[in-house]
Amino acid sequence: MVYPIFGFRTFEVSENGFGVCINFLIIIHMKKHFLFSISFLMCLTGFAQQELGGRGQVQVNSPVIDFDSRVTFNLLAPNAQSVSLTGDVMRGLGVEGRSVDMVKGENGIWSYTSNPMPSDLYTYSFMVDGLRTLDPNNVYTNRDVSTVTNMFIVGNGIGDLYSVNKAPHGTVIKTWYQSPTNTDATVRRITIYTPPGYETGGQSYPVFYLLHGMGGDEEAWITQGRTAQILDNLIAQGLATPMIVVMTNGNVEQEAAPGESSLGLQRPVMTMPKMMDGTFETTFPDIIKFVESVFRVKANKADRAIAGLSMGGFHSLHISRYYPNTFDYIGLFSAALVDRGGNPFYENIVPSLQTQNSNGYKLYWIAMGKTDGLYQSCVDFRKQLDDIGMKYIYRESEGGHTWTNWRLYLTEFVPMLFK
Amino acid sequence: MVYPIFGFRTFEVSENGFGVCINFLIIIHMKKHFLFSISFLMCLTGFAQQELGGRGQVQVNSPVIDFDSRVTFNLLAPNAQSVSLTGDVMRGLGVEGRSVDMVKGENGIWSYTSNPMPSDLYTYSFMVDGLRTLDPNNVYTNRDVSTVTNMFIVGNGIGDLYSVNKAPHGTVIKTWYQSPTNTDATVRRITIYTPPGYETGGQSYPVFYLLHGMGGDEEAWITQGRTAQILDNLIAQGLATPMIVVMTNGNVEQEAAPGESSLGLQRPVMTMPKMMDGTFETTFPDIIKFVESVFRVKANKADRAIAGLSMGGFHSLHISRYYPNTFDYIGLFSAALVDRGGNPFYENIVPSLQTQNSNGYKLYWIAMGKTDGLYQSCVDFRKQLDDIGMKYIYRESEGGHTWTNWRLYLTEFVPMLFK
Repeated sequence: MVYPIFGFRTFEVSENGFGVCINFLIIIHMKKHFLFSISFLMCLTGFAQQELGGRGQVQVNSPVIDFDSRVTFNLLAPNAQSVSLTGDVMRGLGVEGRSVDMVKGENGIWSYTSNPMPSDLYTYSFMVDGLRTLDPNNVYTNRDVSTVTNMFIVGNGIGDLYSVNKAPHGTVIKTWYQSPTNTDATVRRITIYTPPGYETGGQSYPVFYLLHGMGGDEEAWITQGRTAQILDNLIAQGLATPMIVVMTNGNVEQEAAPGESSLGLQRPVMTMPKMMDGTFETTFPDIIKFVESVFRVKANKADRAIAGLSMGGFHSLHISRYYPNTFDYIGLFSAALVDRGGNPFYENIVPSLQTQNSNGYKLYWIAMGKTDGLYQSCVDFRKQLDDIGMKYIYRESEGGHTWTNWRLYLTEFVPMLFK
Repeated sequence: MVYPIFGFRTFEVSENGFGVCINFLIIIHMKKHFLFSISFLMCLTGFAQQELGGRGQVQVNSPVIDFDSRVTFNLLAPNAQSVSLTGDVMRGLGVEGRSVDMVKGENGIWSYTSNPMPSDLYTYSFMVDGLRTLDPNNVYTNRDVSTVTNMFIVGNGIGDLYSVNKAPHGTVIKTWYQSPTNTDATVRRITIYTPPGYETGGQSYPVFYLLHGMGGDEEAWITQGRTAQILDNLIAQGLATPMIVVMTNGNVEQEAAPGESSLGLQRPVMTMPKMMDGTFETTFPDIIKFVESVFRVKANKADRAIAGLSMGGFHSLHISRYYPNTFDYIGLFSAALVDRGGNPFYENIVPSLQTQNSNGYKLYWIAMGKTDGLYQSCVDFRKQLDDIGMKYIYRESEGGHTWTNWRLYLTEFVPMLFK
């Protein structure tokens, strides 16, 4: 790509991963000026575009989202024998299978154009001769445990809630708190969203504790979950009460997300023998204490909510019943309602649920996808709640155990809070 | 990969970008428990590993950093005809050229093992049959304008300053400030680092304004620059005064970094006709005002520093002389000392430099790489400073116009501040 700037100057940006290559030649002699004789030559790397197909190649844009929500994916791969499009994107394409073949054009660019896609956030990858690769023309990526994929948003629907819009923006804070009761990791990273106006105003806010699933961490909800965008947009539309959202790390042995702890840039894995042993639940007051001492919050049951996805739903169930007069709003998103009998923390939980029930609460919200493998466990769990007369709202969605659903559930749960 | 958990249960994580696939079968009947009959089947996607080579394939780890700093890169690509390693990593390999061939093993894994590499942060990509691709086994990436590469750190040297260590951690804040004097974008995103203890203490801190280069944004220093890690480590070692670091967006027409503004997930480009027209410099007081009203800072010249790389060095030069009694510490890292004659803001700057000089300051630090295309312009600039008797410290490094140097300069500049 060559962009003209200042009329007579050009610079050139390489796309090949060697850093920014700028060939920027300016020779100006202006003796009246202080900086009067400048030979400005920036040729910052010797690496050039030819490795991607030569200078002067056509610029490849991908993905291209058309006005009618058709999406075109393009990949320059002149030497490839086969290229296909694959990933979470498939559910929006309206075609069967795990991948869809792309077609090679005369210029060596492989392409696929979808039918109009439902508004949503999608992720995808390319398969090039059997090798999964990211789209080199799309810098927007999404990490799910140890898998990085590209992402894009189709608007004019739910996708607009996941987008950055012309609306007041909250603040996203990555900080560390002391968890003295967690002997596995006493200093732990946490992500906190404060609503627009927090810094410049003086009011106190309710707090929503939002928990990730197995393999996730304190980055999950703010990246894959689009929490900041969803909150910004719902607050701007008057649909949500301004609130602080606290995104924890539920893996008690982790200091922090992969790459953010002293373990270094290790490969993320899902080994968490202590993930459901009661430690996260019993050390949760450290988090509340930190939040309520550092931020301007309303420190009342009526101003606290807790929800989580999958393992985070499990945690939300147990934290809210173990501290049965602490949260007025509880959300179980595709909760992992797994039996942990044998661990005393999870034994004989009915009394604590009955106490929670008699103490009262404003919302107990259970959401599950129709094709989720956890569906039946949720049926069983609701029957148990029915048996003890514990009221809840049940929301059944299409689909399964996916971020698509968890983002959707967040957009539905948040407007019900603190009203 | 199959990880055993709980002894008798297994789950399996796919690596193919379709989200996390968990096959998790637990059938437990424990009638004494509340959650007594749970059939826990999670088969979250139908997409499996075979597209990457079949179940049961050997796990590929990449990069693998050996105890003696040899680094092995691995890529499973059984169908590829050629695979090479390329990128910024080349400077650490001690071999000539822009890339180095990888060798195919019997298992379809292409590999390359380096000689011991100097401690540093490196980025790299693979070229597979002419297509640049990321390392699917390394989730750690680095975006430079529109290029995403993988990254890793070799320790036991300068790389340790770029790593997350067992040290107290500061907080990283992504927020938005009002810039009423910038008519192009009156609400703008900004990144702020506060030192360890900021939240729980009551003291006020000095402020270091740290500016990015052309094509960068408010994400550049915190991601590529490893600012939070460098500050955490220097503070922990007693080498740096605890300080707040403010990382701005110097492209006045941008609300925010790519993907963080209402432009959506657009491709990042380097078109910035207004990048050096005086707007950023003259609207800079909006930033200082925001920082000094929201954070606990020492609002004195002695407690303000400003530095920047490339275009940010240009900005630092002009901001510090235009407000000549505001900063006691000025750093120009590979500064773009480009003449902008014709624009009144940059005309006749000698008087403001002379005023800055007579007002006094504690440090004027100029760093430049020997092979930087801007080298000669820096020679000329220093001569001009000499001519008016304006003192500075000059630091000449190896290398050129690279993040390698800018990270290094940051580690050297920060310890000199606020002493």
